[in-house]
Amino acid sequence: MNILDAVLPEGRRGTVAMPAEWSPELEAGIDARFRVRYELAGREDAPLLVAMGGISADRHVCANALDPAPGWWRKLAGPGLAIDTHRWRLLAIDFLGSPGTFESPDRIHLTPGDQADAVAVALRHLGVERAHRMLGASYGGMVALAMGIRHPARLDGVVLIGAAHRGHPQAIGIHAVQRWIVEFALRHGRGSEGVALARALAFTTYKSAAGLDARFPHDWEWEDGAPVYAVGRYLEQQGRAFAERFEAETYLTLSASVDLCDLPPEDLGVPAWLIGWEEDTLVPPWLLRETASRIGAPSRLRILSSDAGHDAFLLHAPDYEEALRGSLLATEPQALAGSAG
Amino acid sequence: MNILDAVLPEGRRGTVAMPAEWSPELEAGIDARFRVRYELAGREDAPLLVAMGGISADRHVCANALDPAPGWWRKLAGPGLAIDTHRWRLLAIDFLGSPGTFESPDRIHLTPGDQADAVAVALRHLGVERAHRMLGASYGGMVALAMGIRHPARLDGVVLIGAAHRGHPQAIGIHAVQRWIVEFALRHGRGSEGVALARALAFTTYKSAAGLDARFPHDWEWEDGAPVYAVGRYLEQQGRAFAERFEAETYLTLSASVDLCDLPPEDLGVPAWLIGWEEDTLVPPWLLRETASRIGAPSRLRILSSDAGHDAFLLHAPDYEEALRGSLLATEPQALAGSAG
Repeated sequence: MNILDAVLPEGRRGTVAMPAEWSPELEAGIDARFRVRYELAGREDAPLLVAMGGISADRHVCANALDPAPGWWRKLAGPGLAIDTHRWRLLAIDFLGSPGTFESPDRIHLTPGDQADAVAVALRHLGVERAHRMLGASYGGMVALAMGIRHPARLDGVVLIGAAHRGHPQAIGIHAVQRWIVEFALRHGRGSEGVALARALAFTTYKSAAGLDARFPHDWEWEDGAPVYAVGRYLEQQGRAFAERFEAETYLTLSASVDLCDLPPEDLGVPAWLIGWEEDTLVPPWLLRETASRIGAPSRLRILSSDAGHDAFLLHAPDYEEALRGSLLATEPQALAGSAG
Repeated sequence: MNILDAVLPEGRRGTVAMPAEWSPELEAGIDARFRVRYELAGREDAPLLVAMGGISADRHVCANALDPAPGWWRKLAGPGLAIDTHRWRLLAIDFLGSPGTFESPDRIHLTPGDQADAVAVALRHLGVERAHRMLGASYGGMVALAMGIRHPARLDGVVLIGAAHRGHPQAIGIHAVQRWIVEFALRHGRGSEGVALARALAFTTYKSAAGLDARFPHDWEWEDGAPVYAVGRYLEQQGRAFAERFEAETYLTLSASVDLCDLPPEDLGVPAWLIGWEEDTLVPPWLLRETASRIGAPSRLRILSSDAGHDAFLLHAPDYEEALRGSLLATEPQALAGSAG
């Protein structure tokens, strides 16, 4: 046993084909084959959690024996963390639409429901009758809601984090502009710069204004005859780093999928824990309240506070950790400690 | 006297050169000549107000005998309106950096202080010793603050509407992305599409999320094989209409000027009335409170509420009209009726 084995949970990766007769919700009869690429982490004999994040997330949620690289949920999922991989088994998939998940000559339209179908195929493939929870954050939360609507027999509950049943027009408008940027750049053979630009723009909506104000000074520096601000440099770096690892076509597909989401919360067939943040303008509390008020199953909404805005779902904070642990351990949402919703 | 004369105030346009020895604040010794293009509206013998708006505004504030086209402040300024042109004389200028205001082979950097100098030149040219007020909204409010700092002897007070002494990093970040878009488009010979894109993006920050949610349904239509949302169509229309009348280079210059603004409110030499909106995320109340708390002269901040967000400065509302009228009629900010700040 080496050092990694001592601290990292087990890992396992695989790929399973979607059934030949399956088609995406909005693409009946499409000439394309889809594959589900999954990764497992955490204790092998433990109850299973499905975990999915924003459109930039993938199946590698956290470091494990197979892959010690930090995953997208590194601050919340792992040995001893809020989502403790000594205690739980974690399953995640690459979103359909990502490289390696499909072959099609045309652009395809995928919904969160299609992603939920892919999760269900992965569960069947792995022989998991019923997952304990599906935790979904941001776009992944839309997928979790779709999972609880389409495949309620496959899980005992959903945890929706910074995610509502639909987008609101300001977010949809920002996404539409992002896709317009990427398409404009693709027409000029510069898809990667388009993705960098769109992601830089996205970062202005992922962070709260107060959080950015505390972090970045107003001072500028002259660079090539133009003023450059710390916040502008930060956004450009974030955008360019993302564009190095993310395809323009994938970005277009998943960004559109967020906006296509308009799920009926009334149809959710399992208990739901909802977690959101006061400062999240992309998925604001007023929209979460709309979602929560329409869920027919037992549910509980907790609105936390964080300077991080929408990005708070990625970061550790004591109240968030407590809400996550509670959602995993309680049998019903009502059984949670009575903090203010 | 024709019908227009009966309802429209007098109008007059002109151009005056900036002094040959004048240079922009950040461009000492630049090889460029600047011209101030102004327009007057309202009763000829009335006290003078200077009025300036956002970066898309120009010298044509409202319809007048010279030009019956509706101006950018059509809902607030005009005969019988909140800024009553039967009672006041209105002066406005095209922002320096607009077409016709300068000739230079290079891109130039202009500050709100430079715009204030241009207003001062126009006042001297017109023989106006002292204006009654300068009303500035959005970028124009930064110019008004600069005017009250640089040329306090030229006016009796300033009214700052949806405008602070500086931007905050989220707004600066969004502006930086907008300029990146325009510059990317210019490199591909498509400056106009870049301006349309940048303006569409800007519109997502000018409106409040709740206002957009009330106005636009989530439903989409398929168009050329892609889902198109009402809000996306609206943003694209706004962007394209704007790009038809606005130059890419002007957009870059004025957008950068907003971000360059970092004025010391302590140095304001005249009374100030500040008006803002709870729902304005571009110039949020917390930033206006910072501005107001630092003003040494008599001042008063009123935070109103409007679903319109930042755009509320363009729209009529009873509380806004009352605040505007009060700022014009009172001799000191403290003399305003005691509504909650």
